[in-house]
Amino acid sequence: MNSLGIDIGGANLKVSDGREHRIIYFPMWKRARELKTKLRELSMEFGADRAGVVITAELADVFKSKREGIQYIAEICSEVFADVFFLDVEGRLSKEIDDPLKFCASNWMASVSFLVNEGFKDFLFVDIGSTTTDLIPVKEKPTAGKTDFERLKRGELLYMGVLRTPVFYVLKRFEGADLCPEYFAITADVFRVTGDIGEDDYNCETPDSAGKSVEECMRRLSRTVCCDLEELGEKKAKLLAFRAKDAMIRILRREIVTRLSEWDLETVLACGIGEFLVERACECIRLSEKYGTASKLFPAFAMSRLVEKA
Amino acid sequence: MNSLGIDIGGANLKVSDGREHRIIYFPMWKRARELKTKLRELSMEFGADRAGVVITAELADVFKSKREGIQYIAEICSEVFADVFFLDVEGRLSKEIDDPLKFCASNWMASVSFLVNEGFKDFLFVDIGSTTTDLIPVKEKPTAGKTDFERLKRGELLYMGVLRTPVFYVLKRFEGADLCPEYFAITADVFRVTGDIGEDDYNCETPDSAGKSVEECMRRLSRTVCCDLEELGEKKAKLLAFRAKDAMIRILRREIVTRLSEWDLETVLACGIGEFLVERACECIRLSEKYGTASKLFPAFAMSRLVEKA
Repeated sequence: MNSLGIDIGGANLKVSDGREHRIIYFPMWKRARELKTKLRELSMEFGADRAGVVITAELADVFKSKREGIQYIAEICSEVFADVFFLDVEGRLSKEIDDPLKFCASNWMASVSFLVNEGFKDFLFVDIGSTTTDLIPVKEKPTAGKTDFERLKRGELLYMGVLRTPVFYVLKRFEGADLCPEYFAITADVFRVTGDIGEDDYNCETPDSAGKSVEECMRRLSRTVCCDLEELGEKKAKLLAFRAKDAMIRILRREIVTRLSEWDLETVLACGIGEFLVERACECIRLSEKYGTASKLFPAFAMSRLVEKA
Repeated sequence: MNSLGIDIGGANLKVSDGREHRIIYFPMWKRARELKTKLRELSMEFGADRAGVVITAELADVFKSKREGIQYIAEICSEVFADVFFLDVEGRLSKEIDDPLKFCASNWMASVSFLVNEGFKDFLFVDIGSTTTDLIPVKEKPTAGKTDFERLKRGELLYMGVLRTPVFYVLKRFEGADLCPEYFAITADVFRVTGDIGEDDYNCETPDSAGKSVEECMRRLSRTVCCDLEELGEKKAKLLAFRAKDAMIRILRREIVTRLSEWDLETVLACGIGEFLVERACECIRLSEKYGTASKLFPAFAMSRLVEKA
C-alpha cells in the first residue's frame, strides 16, 4: 500500500505519495464538515491506507480553539487511515495526539527534517505558499520558534503569500492614495497581471466571485484605490500590480537577509508555489530543481517520505 | 407625504425622515437584488413617496463599474418613489442622472450643504461610519476632492471605521508580532472589548459567524496574532483591543490636525457612529448634541432636510 503525506492547511489540502502531488483548495472555515469525505476520496484515489499528517488548519475560525481544531482533524485522519502518524513541532512522529498544542503548525518541521535527512546542513528554509511564508533557520538543528505566535515575533512566519494575501497588506500606497482595507483584491490578482501565474494556478476564490482573466484581475486591483478600471485605466492597474510585486520582493529580501545574518547562514533553500518570488529576492537553491513539482507542496511530500521510513 | 433621506452605502442603508432614523445592515455585494424590495418596505414604513438619495455603494464589487452601480441603484429608487432627487458631488439636486460618475460617493456633500444652510461656516466636517471616515474641509465652500480616489490622495477619505475595518489595518504589531492579514477580527470586536459599543451597535456580521459577546470578540482578536484565547489570555486580548483603539485615535488626530492646518481651520464638527472617537482625538463640536441620534446617519438626515426644501 501507498503512504500518503498530507498537509492540512487552513485554505488548502496538500497531498503527496512521493510521486504524485495534489493541491486542493479546501477552505476549512467553510468546509470542515466535508473533511472526512474528502480524505476518504484521496485515500482511495492514491490507494493509501497509511498516512503522515501535519496540520496548520487548527487556526481556522471554524474552531473555537487550536486544541479543538487539532482534535477534530486528528480524529478524522485516524478514522480514514488504518495507519496514521502525526508530526509534532519537535519533529517526532507519533500515532497518538497526547498534547494537541504540540501538533499545531508543524508542517515546516516536516520539510526541514526531510532536508536534513537528505544531507542538507546549515540553511535557511523558505517556503512561500498561498497565504504565508515560513523562514526556518537550520543551524546544526532547526532553531525556529515552536508556535505561530513565537515565529511571528521572530520573523520566521510572514503572513504573506502569493494567492490569498490582500493587496493592501503588501502595498500601502499607490499614486499618493492609501490602498483601502476592503477585501477587494488579493495577491493572486497581482501575479495574474504580472504574468507570474496562470488561470489554473489561481486556485482560490476571487474576492468578487468574478472570473480570473487578466481584465477581471485588473478590475479588482482598481477597487483597492476606490476606482473602477475605467477610472484608473489599464496602464495604472498594471503598474499597481508590479508595484505590489516589487513590495513583496523587498519585504522578502529584507526578512531573508536578516534571518541569514542572525544565524550566520549562507544557503537559502526555496520552495512553495511562490518559489519564483524567492528567486527574485535572493540567491537561492530552488528545491523544484531537485524535487520537481513536489516543491509546491513540500511539507506533504516530505511527510510521505518520512512515514515511508517510519 | 413624508420626505425620506436615503444614504445607500456599500454595507448599510441609512434612512431618515428628519425625525426617525434607521441604519440597516445591507451588504450590497450580497444583497443588491433585494434592494427594490427593501426600499419599498421602507417607503411604506415611513409613509414616504418622496426621497432624496445619495449613493456610495457603487464601489461594491457586485458591480463591474461605478457607472453600472449608480445606474442600477438610481433606477430602483426611481421605480420605488414617485418623486426622487439625487445629489451630485457639486451639491446639485436633480431628478435625472445625466452623468453617473457625478453621483458617485456624494454623501458627504449632503452633510456639509445642510450644515452650511444651518449657518455653520469654515469647519472641518468629520464623519466616522462603520467602514470609512470623511474629513471634509469647508472654507467659504466645501474644498474636498470630487472622487474617492482624489479624496484618498488628499487624506479626505480614510478607509477606517468603527465596525468593519480589519484590526490588522489599524494596529500593525502587538507584543513584537505582526498582526496577520486574515479576516479574523474587525474594529467592532475592538470596541466591544473596550466597552465603547454594545452588542446591538455591532450590526454587521462577525468574521467567524460566531456571536458578539465580549468573550467571542476576544477570541477573534486573539487570532490576529495566530493565537487562540487560551494561548494569548484575556488580559492580553483586552490589551490588544486598547492598543488598536489608541492607534485609531492617533491616526485620526494626525489626519485632523493636518487637514485643519492645511486649510487654516479651527472648528471640527463630528458625527457618525464613531463620533465618540473624534471626541478622543481632538476638540470638537459633536453634532449629536444638536441633532441627537441623527448624528449617526448624518448624510441621510441631511438629505431629508434638503429635499424637504427642494
